[in-house]
Amino acid sequence: MDDRIQHAGMRQRLMPADQAAAVIRHGDTVCMSGFTGAGYPKCVPQALAARIQQAHARGDPFRVRLLTGASTAPELDGALAKVEGMELRLPYQSDPTVRDRINAGQIDYLDIHLSHVAQHTWFGFFGDIDVAVVEIAAILPDGRLLPTSSIGNNRTWLERAGKVILEVNRWQPLALDGMHDVYYGTALPPDRKPIPLVRVEDRIGERYLLVDPDKVVAVVETDAHDRNSPFSPPDDCSQRIAGHLLEFIEHEVARRRLTPRLLPLQSGVGNIANAVLAGIAASGYQNLEAWTEVIQDNMLRLLRDGVLRFASATALSLSGTGTAEFFEHIDFYRRCIVLRPQEISNHPELIRRLGCIAMNGMLETDIYGNVNSTHVAGSRIMNGIGGSGDFARNAFLSIFMAPSTAKQGGVSTIVPMASHVDHTEHDTMIVVTEQGLADLRGLSPRQRARDIIAKCAHPSYRSMLEDYFDRACRNSFGKHTPHLLREALSWHARFVETGSMRIA
Amino acid sequence: MDDRIQHAGMRQRLMPADQAAAVIRHGDTVCMSGFTGAGYPKCVPQALAARIQQAHARGDPFRVRLLTGASTAPELDGALAKVEGMELRLPYQSDPTVRDRINAGQIDYLDIHLSHVAQHTWFGFFGDIDVAVVEIAAILPDGRLLPTSSIGNNRTWLERAGKVILEVNRWQPLALDGMHDVYYGTALPPDRKPIPLVRVEDRIGERYLLVDPDKVVAVVETDAHDRNSPFSPPDDCSQRIAGHLLEFIEHEVARRRLTPRLLPLQSGVGNIANAVLAGIAASGYQNLEAWTEVIQDNMLRLLRDGVLRFASATALSLSGTGTAEFFEHIDFYRRCIVLRPQEISNHPELIRRLGCIAMNGMLETDIYGNVNSTHVAGSRIMNGIGGSGDFARNAFLSIFMAPSTAKQGGVSTIVPMASHVDHTEHDTMIVVTEQGLADLRGLSPRQRARDIIAKCAHPSYRSMLEDYFDRACRNSFGKHTPHLLREALSWHARFVETGSMRIA
Repeated sequence: MDDRIQHAGMRQRLMPADQAAAVIRHGDTVCMSGFTGAGYPKCVPQALAARIQQAHARGDPFRVRLLTGASTAPELDGALAKVEGMELRLPYQSDPTVRDRINAGQIDYLDIHLSHVAQHTWFGFFGDIDVAVVEIAAILPDGRLLPTSSIGNNRTWLERAGKVILEVNRWQPLALDGMHDVYYGTALPPDRKPIPLVRVEDRIGERYLLVDPDKVVAVVETDAHDRNSPFSPPDDCSQRIAGHLLEFIEHEVARRRLTPRLLPLQSGVGNIANAVLAGIAASGYQNLEAWTEVIQDNMLRLLRDGVLRFASATALSLSGTGTAEFFEHIDFYRRCIVLRPQEISNHPELIRRLGCIAMNGMLETDIYGNVNSTHVAGSRIMNGIGGSGDFARNAFLSIFMAPSTAKQGGVSTIVPMASHVDHTEHDTMIVVTEQGLADLRGLSPRQRARDIIAKCAHPSYRSMLEDYFDRACRNSFGKHTPHLLREALSWHARFVETGSMRIA
Repeated sequence: MDDRIQHAGMRQRLMPADQAAAVIRHGDTVCMSGFTGAGYPKCVPQALAARIQQAHARGDPFRVRLLTGASTAPELDGALAKVEGMELRLPYQSDPTVRDRINAGQIDYLDIHLSHVAQHTWFGFFGDIDVAVVEIAAILPDGRLLPTSSIGNNRTWLERAGKVILEVNRWQPLALDGMHDVYYGTALPPDRKPIPLVRVEDRIGERYLLVDPDKVVAVVETDAHDRNSPFSPPDDCSQRIAGHLLEFIEHEVARRRLTPRLLPLQSGVGNIANAVLAGIAASGYQNLEAWTEVIQDNMLRLLRDGVLRFASATALSLSGTGTAEFFEHIDFYRRCIVLRPQEISNHPELIRRLGCIAMNGMLETDIYGNVNSTHVAGSRIMNGIGGSGDFARNAFLSIFMAPSTAKQGGVSTIVPMASHVDHTEHDTMIVVTEQGLADLRGLSPRQRARDIIAKCAHPSYRSMLEDYFDRACRNSFGKHTPHLLREALSWHARFVETGSMRIA
């Protein structure tokens, strides 16, 4: 399979990963490919981690600033965090070691809307980009690059970086060729133009990534699979959440605010999202569309069954089984899947134009619909906002979903006041738990509180919430969004102090 | 001036305001024109208030749900609130009586992104629209309508309402003709197309508003001026804020992240915005552009002086002096001002494409950059979010400005934790007070806190903030966004209890 590197000049720069990693220096800003455990570099990060460890053993400082598309895998985020090689991380992570180091105050983490990353890089807000490390599937004779299972910010990394390291991963199938659409029509203001996309399947860009061959300082060959995202069948709680949401969607169709074709679906990842998609399939919908970030196993199934006619995303994130299915039928999937840069998959212009139905998870919401997606007890980061803000603000319907409790019932998802706000009251339309669904559209804060408490709160917290709200309605400084400031965060404080929000 | 109503059919429906107001019934959803005290109906709301008062005197219920473009004036919001005639109000208000009734829990208020209002109306999220009451400048022979000093949501109100009442205000100059651009290319998903606007001066719509003449149940003649927005010269504090901001902008030009032509300016209203615009003029910039909601006196001056070459907005909001200047030179201003519907002036697609420099006021920000624009002490609404979210999320630069203290120093604008969040940490780039400017781009929460405290906090609160932050960094549950939950809102609680955030 040597013919994956067909450009003569770049072929000359083939070298082992540790030699390539030597290009990266202490203090560098390094941009790597990778989105939701797909298409991240598999070898150079580990070689870099080894170099960092050696430097630290010598007493030399060695830390880098690391930018990616979104989350990666233990071989990248985990490896660099374990050797204390990260000074700064953006825009998203979900790695246990990285998370621990952020929450210990050892890594500076920037939690950023995924649609903002590329443009803020172009604007110069993150400074110069020293090195890009990008996984690709092949190098064409003319130097163009066949992308992999994710695109993410790769176009921006390749253009903005001073030096480029390419990992050519032969595990990535060449039959991906034709599935990508890399938009090159972006510009800096004041020279921006409308993005000419009006349907989820529109192709507006290039099949390949472009790179200046003179910037490519190293090419590394790999043969390693993406992180296999585990796929667990929906549990009872998720199925109940999905049931409430499907009933609501049917109601919207009956009221003619939606047609039976619905509108393009955006779906977060995880158990609840799986249950919702399974429920949609079971409800008999056909010919739907997805405009989302990530395609998981369940979307493959929906495409095969005709429930979905087309899906647009920036990454695949499949289990081992899903990968086998995808590889076996890749000629089918190439006709109904397109992968795009994340500044396109998450672009407010396109999300609003297409009118997505945005379905995202949350850690908690307060009784007024202010949603916390990121911080446990207001201070400890979980993963990050990801694309949820891009979608929630611009969607036709913005839906937030979670079980009504966590930690064996010791934490209520519905709280008096959110301990951190990622999605404001202005952006939240629908809240769903296994208890029920609150439709906040057209409701004032006090009306929302009554609905969220009655429909979404777990029964074991409902009377505590009613009590808070009733007393706040009587004693609050202002009665628009009634709050008791000495008590608003007491549930979280109790959780931090005792491990439970319940009163002992 | 009878020739302002040139359509024969509508002319037959000319009637006094009290007769027109009789069309409106208890429980109706009523949509009225008006944006920042410009172009609101001057007579029918007061006639409606009188009818409501009579009904209440008889013991009959009479309340309406009131939608507008944005804020109006005492003759509309004030009159209806005084007679307790409002059940619900959206999307924005700044009226003292309305505010008091909202904060007393007597009016349900929906505080909504101004770009969302028209589309949520079209989506059916606010239910049926019973009556529209829209001020216009004239009715053409073919039934088209000449808009006034604001457009706001008028296109949507005229199309969606079952019945239409027109107020033809002869105070509005006929020479406005040609200043408006009413975009009729919007559609519901999945039929939306790119909005074909790439420069602030582009005209993409119609000169006139369209209405189905059969829906026009009443035409009322008026001759009354808009609310005169007071224009006060910048005070010392505002000038210092402007000074810091101008120094920052010069720095960005020097770093080549901006050219000397800058990018289209969005400016909120009020003293600080006035000082910033005056400072821009004094700094020698020329040929700038504005893409904003409201044009105030100061922008007229900048247009006259060539500092601005063009300004796009949805409303004029002028003082008496500003109005006189505008009327006298209206032929000049018609060449350099265009008024648009607010779903266009505030559209995320366009704000992001144009790359606005968004400058908005705030009530407070916490040390991590979470901004509260709306709620005093987390519960009492001031005005509303208005368009600040549309601009901040999508701008090239998102800037929030305020004096570092309020209430004679008893309130700090910089607080440990925001008591309400309208703009999340993900959307705030620059914070400015008279003390200095914090540039949060590329900074993690802890880095932001150090900068905001050092550069923006008032000296009399700085050590209190440092003390909170230092202790939070030691004792917080998570160290990503350090907080002490039992103390985070104590400053606000103290303010509510004692009238001051200071420790006695």
